Amino acid sequence: MALSNLILAELRRLVGHENVLTEPEDLIPYSFDGTAALQQMPGCVVFSRTTEQVAAVLKLANEKKLSVVTRGSGTGLSGGSVPNRDCIVLCTVKMDKILELDRANLTLLAEPGVITLNIAEAATAAGLFYPPDPGSMKISTIGGNVAENSGGLRGLKYGVTRNYVMGMEVVLPDGEIMWLGNKCVKDVAGYSLKDLFIGSEGTLGVITKVLLRLIPKPAAKKTMVATFAQMDHAAEAVSAIIAAKIIPCTLEFLDRMTIHCVEDYAKIGLPLDCEALLLMETDGHSAVVAEEAAQMEQCCRNCGCLELRVARDDEEANKLTSARRSAFSALARVAPTTILEDATVPRSELARMIRFVETIAKKYQLRIGTFGHMGDGNLHPTFLTDERNRDEMHRVEEAFKEIFAEAIRLGGTITGEHGVGLAKKSFLPEFLGGTQMRVLRELRKALDPNRILNPGKMFD
Amino acid sequence: MALSNLILAELRRLVGHENVLTEPEDLIPYSFDGTAALQQMPGCVVFSRTTEQVAAVLKLANEKKLSVVTRGSGTGLSGGSVPNRDCIVLCTVKMDKILELDRANLTLLAEPGVITLNIAEAATAAGLFYPPDPGSMKISTIGGNVAENSGGLRGLKYGVTRNYVMGMEVVLPDGEIMWLGNKCVKDVAGYSLKDLFIGSEGTLGVITKVLLRLIPKPAAKKTMVATFAQMDHAAEAVSAIIAAKIIPCTLEFLDRMTIHCVEDYAKIGLPLDCEALLLMETDGHSAVVAEEAAQMEQCCRNCGCLELRVARDDEEANKLTSARRSAFSALARVAPTTILEDATVPRSELARMIRFVETIAKKYQLRIGTFGHMGDGNLHPTFLTDERNRDEMHRVEEAFKEIFAEAIRLGGTITGEHGVGLAKKSFLPEFLGGTQMRVLRELRKALDPNRILNPGKMFD
Repeated sequence: MALSNLILAELRRLVGHENVLTEPEDLIPYSFDGTAALQQMPGCVVFSRTTEQVAAVLKLANEKKLSVVTRGSGTGLSGGSVPNRDCIVLCTVKMDKILELDRANLTLLAEPGVITLNIAEAATAAGLFYPPDPGSMKISTIGGNVAENSGGLRGLKYGVTRNYVMGMEVVLPDGEIMWLGNKCVKDVAGYSLKDLFIGSEGTLGVITKVLLRLIPKPAAKKTMVATFAQMDHAAEAVSAIIAAKIIPCTLEFLDRMTIHCVEDYAKIGLPLDCEALLLMETDGHSAVVAEEAAQMEQCCRNCGCLELRVARDDEEANKLTSARRSAFSALARVAPTTILEDATVPRSELARMIRFVETIAKKYQLRIGTFGHMGDGNLHPTFLTDERNRDEMHRVEEAFKEIFAEAIRLGGTITGEHGVGLAKKSFLPEFLGGTQMRVLRELRKALDPNRILNPGKMFD
Repeated sequence: MALSNLILAELRRLVGHENVLTEPEDLIPYSFDGTAALQQMPGCVVFSRTTEQVAAVLKLANEKKLSVVTRGSGTGLSGGSVPNRDCIVLCTVKMDKILELDRANLTLLAEPGVITLNIAEAATAAGLFYPPDPGSMKISTIGGNVAENSGGLRGLKYGVTRNYVMGMEVVLPDGEIMWLGNKCVKDVAGYSLKDLFIGSEGTLGVITKVLLRLIPKPAAKKTMVATFAQMDHAAEAVSAIIAAKIIPCTLEFLDRMTIHCVEDYAKIGLPLDCEALLLMETDGHSAVVAEEAAQMEQCCRNCGCLELRVARDDEEANKLTSARRSAFSALARVAPTTILEDATVPRSELARMIRFVETIAKKYQLRIGTFGHMGDGNLHPTFLTDERNRDEMHRVEEAFKEIFAEAIRLGGTITGEHGVGLAKKSFLPEFLGGTQMRVLRELRKALDPNRILNPGKMFD
């Protein structure tokens, strides 16, 4: 049911006329997120500027039982911020202030609409470090990162967004405002509600402030790239590095298809005659970095790498890193529809999983480029397809089913860092099982009894 | 209402005759935990050996609406495992096997009754490291550590128990068994139920397996002790260390009363003519350790330390560390009742909080020895008292109220690592506020509708 003029007038009264969009041409940019083949027009878009406005909007929506889909920049890859039909899109991008950087307690307080990169840069300017670096960090907002528990390239050593959230302000569906957590390193007063909200994909409340933990900036860094004739050799090199008790800050890989697409796109000068490329980075004290880099190099050589290139300076390091950072964009150029997947397995099962994806590509005659976080076991098989080709899309779906079944069989998960949203919703019940699904439903019912927040996302 | 013979017979049938205790003299050791002045006789004690037995016991209790209080070694300091009257105490100490140590994925799978120290030693034997080291780690069980989200001396650099739990098996009150988490470094499929159960103090389910994350063992370590004429100087040294971008693995302090008690007890040769003692430890690569130790020493000297002693070898390091590790035992010797508190503030407010505790000790004519985790802002003001002295106990209570009010005022928490249990229950509502208390209640109701699990703990 479309939003009535009465509701729209009330929303305008709450947030100001200029902060409510209703014209179709204005709504279109908010009708999708970063996920392929998903689109739905909302009833309106509301920009909040304060926590009190968020509370007022939710209170109204809750009373009238209207759906609210919260979003930041909409870079999500699981459809988590795709609108419901005629819903209110609550967009937090105008709440974009860094409120405090506390050097004594190493914390940063931000509004949810702050761009992730701005947080990283504010930390750097203070000689500190905010490690989570999701692929979309130049555009994504910290509120979205927290709602999705975003990962990135440094997960193996530094963890993900969850590991850096010390507190948050949350507005519940009934408009009540809660502050969770604090600047204390330790706090065990009550259940960790903060951790329940991290990764809850906008289904339990709206995040209106985030308190982040910063750490000292590593003094040195070394970046290198190694290529391998066979994926198995690359996987062996990764195992050898871990067995040497090294936890690199980055341990990424690209397969042949991705390497070629990246080289076409970015002209980095990557070696093309290989099955796999590893991008490795160690950071920390300069003595540690020198030793670890030498050991990592030795591990790669012992596993028969074809070529190994160590960046001489920051510029070359950035160039090598950009090979990985541009993987998605590079693949996205070569087909009308790019579906980026996120199956994840324990690190020890990674080589097996990569081979399985290759088999599936052949079986279903699909073009798949695979890249991802090798140290994390977090794979991004990317389907190069065309959503207008019904037969191919059907084969893509069948391929997904097999890939996720295999990930689960290997002790993995259906999503490492992109979230469930709409894209993985149908796979969640089998993965979690009936008991856990029941608990998820009961928690959601307890927090959002009228089901106004992002309904239909994650599970029904 | 006492447990009927019918119930006891059924429990014996479920877990075996030898695993049910009912004689008063057998029950007494299970009528208290590590918390002073709290005792209550249970109806029986049941030892489970398998997950299925736990499920069967809970199912029975749920049907008959009987209270179940789960415990391991009972070292808790907030009364979290003190029985309810006539309840079933479910004791997991016989589920004490380490089931797997996975060197490729750096994980350890354990039953809940494994002693924390055994986990640390198993990790060490594999060249790996399990950092959480709660004070009670020689006796406490990993199940209890997870249920309480235990801290320890390494929290500042390495975090607490939560940061090392990758997965767990949980039995819900209705006997349903769930497996949460996995060996993947990244996993965002559904709400993080694992994080909800960590620190839930036995009120949501019973933990029957724990999957822990291990990390590479730091190659080197340096331990040192510095003494200061004034607490403020010690606090300034801590601030200077953090400002120098050093995160030591240990940064502990003892006040004058504690130093004297420890020296009386352990004859370590501590300097007695000081107001404060800092125990500092840096670990990692030997080059890092050497540099950081030199910088920490300089910070202490710049802040006017009286004496600084660097351990020459492991033996001396252990001796110095034991000064801190024996603080509680040493204080406990000098008074019939020792009440260990756990107020925590942001690190920047620590000196202020310590001075406040001193003022309160004078105001209420109480003996308080204070020690704790200076880097974490986690204070343990310890009241040396006598529970038979009603007037004094009344003053202790009044002193607590003021200390917690001040901790909250300074942006801190009422418990950094000991939990709420019975001891902090009355302080929780004011700390969290009405909205958060309502959410806690709703979550508990969703998971344990018959309120059989540890009823009356954390909140009513």
